[in-house]
Amino acid sequence: MSDHTPQTADRPTERKVADAQRAALELARTDDGRRSDALREIAAAIEANAEAILAANERDVEAAEELHADGEYSRAFVDRLTLSETKIEGIAEMVRSVADQTDPLGETIEARRLDTGLELYRVSVPIGVVGTVFESRPDALVQIAALALKSGNAVILKGGSEALHSNRILHETILEATPELPDGWAAQVEAREDVETLLGMDEEIDLLMPRGSSEFVEYIQSNTNVPVLGHTEGVCHVYVDSAADLEMAREIAYDAKVQYPAVCNAVETLLVHESVAGTFLPAMAEEYETAGVELRGDERSRAIVEMDAAVEDDWRTEYGDLILSIRVVDSLGEAVDHVTAYGSKHTDAIVTDDADRAARFMRSLDSASVFHNASTRFADGYRFGLGAEVGISTGKIHARGPVGLEGLTTYQYYLEGSGQQVGTYAGEDAKPYRHEEFDGEWSPGSLSGEDGS
Amino acid sequence: MSDHTPQTADRPTERKVADAQRAALELARTDDGRRSDALREIAAAIEANAEAILAANERDVEAAEELHADGEYSRAFVDRLTLSETKIEGIAEMVRSVADQTDPLGETIEARRLDTGLELYRVSVPIGVVGTVFESRPDALVQIAALALKSGNAVILKGGSEALHSNRILHETILEATPELPDGWAAQVEAREDVETLLGMDEEIDLLMPRGSSEFVEYIQSNTNVPVLGHTEGVCHVYVDSAADLEMAREIAYDAKVQYPAVCNAVETLLVHESVAGTFLPAMAEEYETAGVELRGDERSRAIVEMDAAVEDDWRTEYGDLILSIRVVDSLGEAVDHVTAYGSKHTDAIVTDDADRAARFMRSLDSASVFHNASTRFADGYRFGLGAEVGISTGKIHARGPVGLEGLTTYQYYLEGSGQQVGTYAGEDAKPYRHEEFDGEWSPGSLSGEDGS
Repeated sequence: MSDHTPQTADRPTERKVADAQRAALELARTDDGRRSDALREIAAAIEANAEAILAANERDVEAAEELHADGEYSRAFVDRLTLSETKIEGIAEMVRSVADQTDPLGETIEARRLDTGLELYRVSVPIGVVGTVFESRPDALVQIAALALKSGNAVILKGGSEALHSNRILHETILEATPELPDGWAAQVEAREDVETLLGMDEEIDLLMPRGSSEFVEYIQSNTNVPVLGHTEGVCHVYVDSAADLEMAREIAYDAKVQYPAVCNAVETLLVHESVAGTFLPAMAEEYETAGVELRGDERSRAIVEMDAAVEDDWRTEYGDLILSIRVVDSLGEAVDHVTAYGSKHTDAIVTDDADRAARFMRSLDSASVFHNASTRFADGYRFGLGAEVGISTGKIHARGPVGLEGLTTYQYYLEGSGQQVGTYAGEDAKPYRHEEFDGEWSPGSLSGEDGS
Repeated sequence: MSDHTPQTADRPTERKVADAQRAALELARTDDGRRSDALREIAAAIEANAEAILAANERDVEAAEELHADGEYSRAFVDRLTLSETKIEGIAEMVRSVADQTDPLGETIEARRLDTGLELYRVSVPIGVVGTVFESRPDALVQIAALALKSGNAVILKGGSEALHSNRILHETILEATPELPDGWAAQVEAREDVETLLGMDEEIDLLMPRGSSEFVEYIQSNTNVPVLGHTEGVCHVYVDSAADLEMAREIAYDAKVQYPAVCNAVETLLVHESVAGTFLPAMAEEYETAGVELRGDERSRAIVEMDAAVEDDWRTEYGDLILSIRVVDSLGEAVDHVTAYGSKHTDAIVTDDADRAARFMRSLDSASVFHNASTRFADGYRFGLGAEVGISTGKIHARGPVGLEGLTTYQYYLEGSGQQVGTYAGEDAKPYRHEEFDGEWSPGSLSGEDGS
């Protein structure tokens, strides 16, 4: 656009975003067949290119191993970075499964006849240009690009520098497999300054999806006017009610902490009604201790079971580890108050056989997910059946909780008329509107014949 | 609940917001009957209090008349500020019509059986605490409070200082009519500094809805991390295609400009296909000139009809007045390119008898509303049949175009289980998920008997 754009070997980020904007408009018009075929081409190209991808990944892994030897990276970090034949097959399968998802675009969400021959359709469309900043697992780049393509969005990809060579070759593989897609639909940026540039482009970028630590997501949110869909922390609770089946409570509380403690939907604080605490806690604590869970309790818990004292900060902490805080409460209301005061509005569960008490708990909490007699660990796009998971949102606007492809769409209003003017429906002899919902899908010339002019 | 402290007492803004947070949690649990009854009480109280409201309004109007005499306020401004018996009746009627709307809360948007006895419900809930800053029409305060209440949200109200006395008494009337609602559900702030305070409270306020000039909305967007739902400018287009019914085109282009030129959905630029420009423009221009519309054209328009030359800035300008820019284009593609380059993604219309060309135009544009053979002026919540209009959004996230009560809601995921643990569905002997959509509404104990444990 500008004559004064500085020319560098690499195209500047602004130029990539401008190309992405153009590509987005074209992508929005492509039908699902073309988008899904392109995804299958990508899957095939990744498999065909496996050797070169592994070689590039080897370079990232070697560098990471050195930093691991220096104590900078954990073993788990290096493992996540490392690709293998099997992992590459898994990535290709994932891309094919995204291709197989129902088309999120072109769906008529509602149809309303405003008057005879004047029909309004609300139709799902892509958001436009989505900026993403993600962690170092090399499959992240492919997953995000696949989800963006399926939902007709252009995407700017910024991966972790630790995966630089892996990301480069995966990005090239994707672009080479999709020559028929609009130029610039998936652009990669690599430098930290590029992220700063993206944060300032609120006229051009429609949505930012950062993945990573809470601190990182919060940093992005605080430094941009682009809407951000992201996930900060998960301080999740399980509340064992007075009317709980204690055997069920034991299984749920165990699963929610022990099955995978490092994730955001693992429980961090166990709340127990005082009427069952004496029966429930001793056996529960024994089971936790066998699993290596460190317990920190309030005074009343510690009167029942010996454990360290929880301090005020414990109630707010996402341990992400085999640590659990425990508190005895007098009532369901006190449990709700605790979750409201200390929780992160992520996922909270009640165990009770009393449906009305469960409903009271669920309707009193402002959490994205509230569960009755099930483990908090179910809060996940795959388990929820949303298909591919775009991410988890802890905001309340646009998309909340686990986000599927639908979170990458917005809508347009299409009005099909036959020459209507607003003047006809205004003033003294105003014609009234009909405003009738009807079952209908927008398509070219969808205005129903009998009603049309 | 209420300790009868007068709400208008000068509590600091932070305290008002904290109270609103508590009120929001309680409001979210109230059923539609209670919310709608409270709205009817408000309508009755406004009618009963008409005399005092008019007296307070008189004070605002007197001050405004003085500033009008000094040339600071326009006649129209003072008129909009001025209440009358009839206007007060209209306000009460509006509140009753909000009460009569379908309940936007508690709707099960989707229900999915994850497994036998494990059912996921996505249910509409209020957003929480909504901050609003609005123009000086005194009915705005009542409208916003009514919409917030109907959708179960607590609201912070900041009106224009010109309507100070009117807003105070309307706010008092609303609170006195609803003693049974949670304390702090509708708080008023009055000072400009209070707005700054609100902008900084991104942990406490869930959504900001500014109304007013584009500059004002942009200022809010640029100075807060709270999500903003608002409307900036409307540079709308009508494109008269080669396959247009020219009589229809004439009526639509006239209505879109002349029926009410001051609003955001009025047309600002008329694009005409070169094949019909010679026939269409002369008669159209004559009609516009009779209506007092000033025309500014590109070279090719000016070769057909005498008018001022449009400069580059004209294509980007929301005149909001009886001024129109005109451009002759070679093709539908050129019309799309013009709208993409200069439009504001608000509302654009094509006039054509060719359904496929209409669809191409509609699918190529990234505008909230795209119309075929209808005036751009239909882009409005009331005309769209959305019921009460919360506002118009020019963003793409959460809500787009005219926003109804649905824009003031989000959703929660309720999972009803019978003791399920994630461990059962993971690892080597993982039980598969069923993931079946089903027709169901969440309610206490909604887990279907036959599937439950």
